[in-house]
Amino acid sequence: MPVIDLRSDTKTRPTPEMYQAMVEAPVGDDMDGEDPTVNRLQERVAEMFGKEAALFGVSGTMTNQLGIRCHCGPGDELLIHRTGHIANYEGGAPAAMSGITCRLVGGERGMPTPEDFEAELHPEAQHYPRTRLVCLENSTNMGGGAAWPIDRFREAAGWARERGFRVHLDGARLFNACVARGYTPADLTAEVDTISICFSKGLGCPMGSMLIGSADDICKAFRARKLFGGALRQSGIIAGAALFALDHHIDRLSEDHANARLMADQIAAMPGLRCDPATVETNILFFELDSEIGTPQQLATAVRERGVVMMPAGPRTIRVCTHLDVTRDDIKQAAGVLGEELENLRQSAKPVSLVRQG
Amino acid sequence: MPVIDLRSDTKTRPTPEMYQAMVEAPVGDDMDGEDPTVNRLQERVAEMFGKEAALFGVSGTMTNQLGIRCHCGPGDELLIHRTGHIANYEGGAPAAMSGITCRLVGGERGMPTPEDFEAELHPEAQHYPRTRLVCLENSTNMGGGAAWPIDRFREAAGWARERGFRVHLDGARLFNACVARGYTPADLTAEVDTISICFSKGLGCPMGSMLIGSADDICKAFRARKLFGGALRQSGIIAGAALFALDHHIDRLSEDHANARLMADQIAAMPGLRCDPATVETNILFFELDSEIGTPQQLATAVRERGVVMMPAGPRTIRVCTHLDVTRDDIKQAAGVLGEELENLRQSAKPVSLVRQG
Amino acid sequence: MPVIDLRSDTKTRPTPEMYQAMVEAPVGDDMDGEDPTVNRLQERVAEMFGKEAALFGVSGTMTNQLGIRCHCGPGDELLIHRTGHIANYEGGAPAAMSGITCRLVGGERGMPTPEDFEAELHPEAQHYPRTRLVCLENSTNMGGGAAWPIDRFREAAGWARERGFRVHLDGARLFNACVARGYTPADLTAEVDTISICFSKGLGCPMGSMLIGSADDICKAFRARKLFGGALRQSGIIAGAALFALDHHIDRLSEDHANARLMADQIAAMPGLRCDPATVETNILFFELDSEIGTPQQLATAVRERGVVMMPAGPRTIRVCTHLDVTRDDIKQAAGVLGEELENLRQSAKPVSLVRQG
Amino acid sequence: MPVIDLRSDTKTRPTPEMYQAMVEAPVGDDMDGEDPTVNRLQERVAEMFGKEAALFGVSGTMTNQLGIRCHCGPGDELLIHRTGHIANYEGGAPAAMSGITCRLVGGERGMPTPEDFEAELHPEAQHYPRTRLVCLENSTNMGGGAAWPIDRFREAAGWARERGFRVHLDGARLFNACVARGYTPADLTAEVDTISICFSKGLGCPMGSMLIGSADDICKAFRARKLFGGALRQSGIIAGAALFALDHHIDRLSEDHANARLMADQIAAMPGLRCDPATVETNILFFELDSEIGTPQQLATAVRERGVVMMPAGPRTIRVCTHLDVTRDDIKQAAGVLGEELENLRQSAKPVSLVRQG
Repeated sequence: MPVIDLRSDTKTRPTPEMYQAMVEAPVGDDMDGEDPTVNRLQERVAEMFGKEAALFGVSGTMTNQLGIRCHCGPGDELLIHRTGHIANYEGGAPAAMSGITCRLVGGERGMPTPEDFEAELHPEAQHYPRTRLVCLENSTNMGGGAAWPIDRFREAAGWARERGFRVHLDGARLFNACVARGYTPADLTAEVDTISICFSKGLGCPMGSMLIGSADDICKAFRARKLFGGALRQSGIIAGAALFALDHHIDRLSEDHANARLMADQIAAMPGLRCDPATVETNILFFELDSEIGTPQQLATAVRERGVVMMPAGPRTIRVCTHLDVTRDDIKQAAGVLGEELENLRQSAKPVSLVRQG
Repeated sequence: MPVIDLRSDTKTRPTPEMYQAMVEAPVGDDMDGEDPTVNRLQERVAEMFGKEAALFGVSGTMTNQLGIRCHCGPGDELLIHRTGHIANYEGGAPAAMSGITCRLVGGERGMPTPEDFEAELHPEAQHYPRTRLVCLENSTNMGGGAAWPIDRFREAAGWARERGFRVHLDGARLFNACVARGYTPADLTAEVDTISICFSKGLGCPMGSMLIGSADDICKAFRARKLFGGALRQSGIIAGAALFALDHHIDRLSEDHANARLMADQIAAMPGLRCDPATVETNILFFELDSEIGTPQQLATAVRERGVVMMPAGPRTIRVCTHLDVTRDDIKQAAGVLGEELENLRQSAKPVSLVRQG
Repeated sequence: MPVIDLRSDTKTRPTPEMYQAMVEAPVGDDMDGEDPTVNRLQERVAEMFGKEAALFGVSGTMTNQLGIRCHCGPGDELLIHRTGHIANYEGGAPAAMSGITCRLVGGERGMPTPEDFEAELHPEAQHYPRTRLVCLENSTNMGGGAAWPIDRFREAAGWARERGFRVHLDGARLFNACVARGYTPADLTAEVDTISICFSKGLGCPMGSMLIGSADDICKAFRARKLFGGALRQSGIIAGAALFALDHHIDRLSEDHANARLMADQIAAMPGLRCDPATVETNILFFELDSEIGTPQQLATAVRERGVVMMPAGPRTIRVCTHLDVTRDDIKQAAGVLGEELENLRQSAKPVSLVRQG
Repeated sequence: MPVIDLRSDTKTRPTPEMYQAMVEAPVGDDMDGEDPTVNRLQERVAEMFGKEAALFGVSGTMTNQLGIRCHCGPGDELLIHRTGHIANYEGGAPAAMSGITCRLVGGERGMPTPEDFEAELHPEAQHYPRTRLVCLENSTNMGGGAAWPIDRFREAAGWARERGFRVHLDGARLFNACVARGYTPADLTAEVDTISICFSKGLGCPMGSMLIGSADDICKAFRARKLFGGALRQSGIIAGAALFALDHHIDRLSEDHANARLMADQIAAMPGLRCDPATVETNILFFELDSEIGTPQQLATAVRERGVVMMPAGPRTIRVCTHLDVTRDDIKQAAGVLGEELENLRQSAKPVSLVRQG
């Protein structure tokens, strides 16, 4: 049975064309700066963002952690939305690897306003870690794939700079936001110090990420990458996939977004599920299941047995993520299966409640 | 002008009798375990808490940080109330010195219930730091000096143990809680792994703290204390003050509590200030100032000019803390000054609001 | 001009057959344990070493650092030869990432005896970091590619265990040692706790390494790998190369060793160079250049212009390393070029010394 | 039996006059900068060294660790003599607390020359930690109490500055060196960035130390001190002792030096002991015991039973340290006891050797 995997855009496998690009990429020893494909990728991405330099890394966690380490050290603090990936899903690395405290702030759909940040500021005193950095995420993962409007993004980044804080952007899904909102990476990040982007999510690569910033910051990150075990040899094989993805897999993200909206429309029409299609801007959506029907785990298990895989993401919530390996037809089929299994679950739930009433 | 300093119980100066005890304490080189007064203090406190061992430290921050380090290392996580001292007022040391992430939980007046903790648990997976420890605080500082009821405390500690987590108690003001609630330290902490107590707060010593726990944990803390620069020489001078305080300054904490309640009663009767005397259990109280009258900073400045010092602690909040160097008469005088300056502030505020209305 | 690169065995590029294996390897999301090729590689390597488990990593630095972190934490100390890779060439990561102190010991050709270790032991006291781990390296890099005799290796590891220390083996070039000495990995490492092996050196892969040990240690390393940014997605592409190398690139290491010996024989016969072919056991050799002829940098520059690349490794020393991309004919040609440029350098050095004499 | 403790100058107990000074010192809450005695001490010491600022700390380990942290962070490296206190006797704190690697260099009697430093420099590359700092010690502890000649000190510090490295001086016994060599602290340290001095060694205080440097560095150290748990309350009690010691206990160090030389002369005259009085410049001396007579531990145990305490410091070596609590008569008595017990040990050793000969 073919599987429609809607858990994450990290699930993609390279296309034949991407494999071809990987095999044909000239390689060398990147530890000594001799890999021509890695060098080409780094130059191209730096230029794309209008920054001085870029550094290849194997994972988004690595480039995020290298990024915050450019700005903070032990005893420093960064401000981040309470659902931010850096603070929540990187194993506690800010504290463990760099001695950094994360201060969590509020904000709708993962996007804090200056007021949200201000509300969590503390006085400047020895009792507190020293605030140094603001981390933003675009698109937001746990914020439902929201793509920052450019004005609001600039306002948040501008507030940080006025306060004397630096700004790091976790752009694991930045190209989704760019495609959805119509801005370029360089436009958005003019006021940002460092940006991490990831090739193994929407762009469909098997692995690989990039940190982008000033020459000084990238130089710091370069040394720290060695400490993280991220200095590699013939990494041009991976960089070749990334170059291919930059050429061929950005514009098509709009298909993923359309697919996510289609899925949201279908879900919104199913009694017992709640989802607002108007908020689906990119390739991620969350929907809620009425608790009297069953748990997210029950529903996910039921559809999985029929080849549709989704991610329970809370006591009532399920996450759906579209990507390169999911077609429009897959979405239609997945929605059909979801509707049927929802109905089955509802039916099987009834007798239980009848017994309870009796 | 004599000053009535109500900012903190850390403001006390040694009494002549305490100085005498310090001078008469026999001393030796504690780095080599040869200080008889430190040894005596460590034995006495361990026995007082029914634990195997205790270790002298210079500050509550040091013994708290040594305590959490007994249970957690880089990549681990501790759970703590969102106002907890360890997470908020120790400079970010959990991350900076030990690579530990603090996960903040809710709870009324600084005292989380098992439900409050449960609400913040995450799955066991590589994406998250590993949860290892629950930190409790008694009495709570930013929770308004609340003293845990013993049943609720045991319930929280018991929940932690069932979950397989260890428990550290920040007992900077534990004796205040014991006196207020009528339990002994040993009764309260039977299910606690490590306890930090502080001699330089309610007990009136110039400095000094203690970490208490199993022989294994204290052995770990002993080595870590050297790393923190806390292994000293003739520290019996400080330990002598602590021994004196254990004999003479515990029972009298009830006077500080009565003084805090007296102050609360007076404040509650002043129009424009809000304070609930029923919640004042120990030596700390917070009160709110109506915003149309002025800011906490304005009021604090006004009373300071008349020799009464209080601590602004938020946009509308002021903290008052009673202690050994504040008498019942001081409280009456301070309340009088506060009432007068409140009235002055109200008067000076009026024209402004008239203008606004006009 | 085709280049004969003798700087390092990290310089190899994948063969067409290895590329084929990479493209054909089935892949999945290894972050969720779903990459079948990574899983197969981990099982195979664990079995090969007779250990419970193995974990894929992107670099030898990463798996070395994960390995030492299994055994040591902040305030601990490891013992290692003064030329050991972990202490000298991993950017200071033991201190920077894990708070570990490296204590350097002596020993001929990178192989310390129990006496060498004993000479650096200190008393057990708070003044010293706590000794926890012994790190061995086989073959030794800066020890001239020496391969430990199995008896001496067991003696060193056995000493560590008697002392209560754990043992980590940096096996970046372990297969070279196995082939040279005729032991199996499992025979050698029966008394070793963790082993790091590297696929991007003699085995000819573009990147990739492995940590091998008990289930408990690998579980610790698994969590730490996330903190280092080393948890990846479709890493089966890299693992596919490693599986291919295990099948096809181990036995052929004897060719590299024969080539290194051939080179050593040639060098030993050149006046002005010093090299003892009897000590060349694997694929690494160091030779010395008489200082009156010139510097290693001068000689290296001269041969580089003719397509032969070697690594200056000290004020009088040059390192040569043979590998998959260097044939026997390449060695003969490189030796010829080296001999000629040595002569040229000697000639050009003469007038200078004449002038000086005059 | 009165004890003559020659193990360390950390063994001193406060004199009655020093206790008086401690009791009379005005105190306040130093956490809020309100302790007048601490403030006075900090200003006085800064001025004494011709630097902008100084910061009180509880121990020499703390101020040393704060000092190196001003200049280095995780991934950085400091250069230090292989017997230096910071690298050897502070529990591994450079790595454990600050992620710093110590690179050990040679040098006679604990005093490296520029050539000694140069010999351990490595290239600037990602494989190595980044060299940032040179640590010097004066007088040297394990170098036999050697006091740097000012020219040699300036040469070493000047070399560091030319190389772009910063300089920290561990001046735990700096006043001994100043008295022995006749220079002032300010003269010596003009080219030094940070200096740690200690009051609990030759100066006779029960505890206390100071970090001295630029306003910027002391500001950094001030925040870090909080992280180390070293921010205290009424620490003026300790600072009072330090002020007294600066007035009364510096010039008298020459008595300790004379006593050490007297002891060295006596020891040099005892057959079976080796000591060069000409090298005894301050209050520390090491002597060697012929191995056929016995072990340092045996000799130390024997004299201890007669009230003379010395510190075995190696397989054949014993350390003697003079200080405020040891008079000239004590030295004469200790030398007498040492001579007698040496003879006893020799006698008891004889039969064994006779048996061996037979």
